[in-house]
Amino acid sequence: MNYPSGIKVNPRKNITYGNRGMTLECDLNETNQYYLVNNIAVIHKKPTPITIVDVDYQSRKDAVITKAYFRTPSTTDYNGIYKGKYIDFEAKETTNKTSFPLSNIHKHQIEHLTKIYEHGGISFLIVRFTKLNLTYYLSLESLKKFIDIKNQKSIPLKYFEENGFIIPDKYSPRIDYLEIINHIYFKGDEL
Amino acid sequence: MNYPSGIKVNPRKNITYGNRGMTLECDLNETNQYYLVNNIAVIHKKPTPITIVDVDYQSRKDAVITKAYFRTPSTTDYNGIYKGKYIDFEAKETTNKTSFPLSNIHKHQIEHLTKIYEHGGISFLIVRFTKLNLTYYLSLESLKKFIDIKNQKSIPLKYFEENGFIIPDKYSPRIDYLEIINHIYFKGDEL
Repeated sequence: MNYPSGIKVNPRKNITYGNRGMTLECDLNETNQYYLVNNIAVIHKKPTPITIVDVDYQSRKDAVITKAYFRTPSTTDYNGIYKGKYIDFEAKETTNKTSFPLSNIHKHQIEHLTKIYEHGGISFLIVRFTKLNLTYYLSLESLKKFIDIKNQKSIPLKYFEENGFIIPDKYSPRIDYLEIINHIYFKGDEL
Repeated sequence: MNYPSGIKVNPRKNITYGNRGMTLECDLNETNQYYLVNNIAVIHKKPTPITIVDVDYQSRKDAVITKAYFRTPSTTDYNGIYKGKYIDFEAKETTNKTSFPLSNIHKHQIEHLTKIYEHGGISFLIVRFTKLNLTYYLSLESLKKFIDIKNQKSIPLKYFEENGFIIPDKYSPRIDYLEIINHIYFKGDEL
C-alpha cells in the first residue's frame, strides 16, 4: 500500500520482521522525543500536508474534517535545531534488499535539501533497508554526488556502505543519528 | 518608535495596500516565497496538524480522508533557515485595538520557542493588529520578559511599541521580517 508517510492507518502490531515491529517513523519519534526531553536537540516531524475540502463545525471546538486530500510534500518530513545548526532530513524505508529506489524521494524534496545545505544547514537522508535491518545516514553531498554522476534510478546498497554511515540500533534513543552528525560536524564533542 | 535603522517607515502615507483584505498568513506565504525564489532564506509554514481517523482508499493514488480532527499544535507554524541560523516563529492576528491576548498562543508553543532560543535559534512572534493595520516583530526574549514580570493576560500595544519592531508594509516582499532580524542579529549586513 502506498500510504503517505506519517499516517498510521493500522498499528503494525502483527508485523514481525526483524525490527521489533517498529517502523522507522516510530523509531525516529522515540529518538526525537529522547533528544527533546534530554535537552539535546529540538527536532520534530512535520504534520502530513493535506488539503481540507469540507469541515463539519458541529460546535466551535469540535470541528470534524469530513473531506480532505493528501498533498505532495514540498519539503522534508523532519527538521529542527542541534547545537545551533539547522537540521533537515527525509526518512524512508525500503523492502528492497540490494538498492534504494530514488522514486521514494520527490524531486522537490531533493531540491529542498539542497537549498538547506546551501544556506548552511545539515541535510541528509535516513534510509532503512527493513529486510536487512540496516539503517543508513546518507549526507546530501553523497546523495547529490550519486545523482550527478550516475544515471541510475536506484542507489545500490554498496553505495550506502561506502558513502553512508550505519546508524546502530540502540535501546534508547533507538536510532541515534546525532552521533553521526557529531562525528561529521562536531568531531571531538560529546553528545 | 523602535524602528531598525535604515528602514524607511512611511508614516502610513496612503497605505491602503497593507491590508487589502489579505490575511497575515497570505502575506507571510508571499514573503516566504519571495525569500525562497530570491535565495535569501528557506522558511516554510508547517502543515496544519490533524489526526486522521478514516481514509477511503478508492485507488492507490486517490486516497480521500473522510474523517479527521484538528490537533493542538505542539510547535509553531513557521520555521526555516536564514544565513545559517535556525528561525522559528508563530504568527497571530488580533482584532483587538489595545492589546494582544496571550490566549492566542498555546503554552507549549512558548515552551517550544524558548527551547529553540536556548539551542541557539532565533525565536519570535509576529503579531498583527488588523484594525490598526500594524504588524509587530516581538522577540522571544521580550515575550518572556513580559510573561515573567507581568501577571497580565494580554500584552498591551504599548509594550509592542516599546519592545517590538514594526514590520513595515511593502509591496514585495509584503512583510519583510528578515530586515528586523538583520538589524538585531546581523548588523551591517545587507539582505
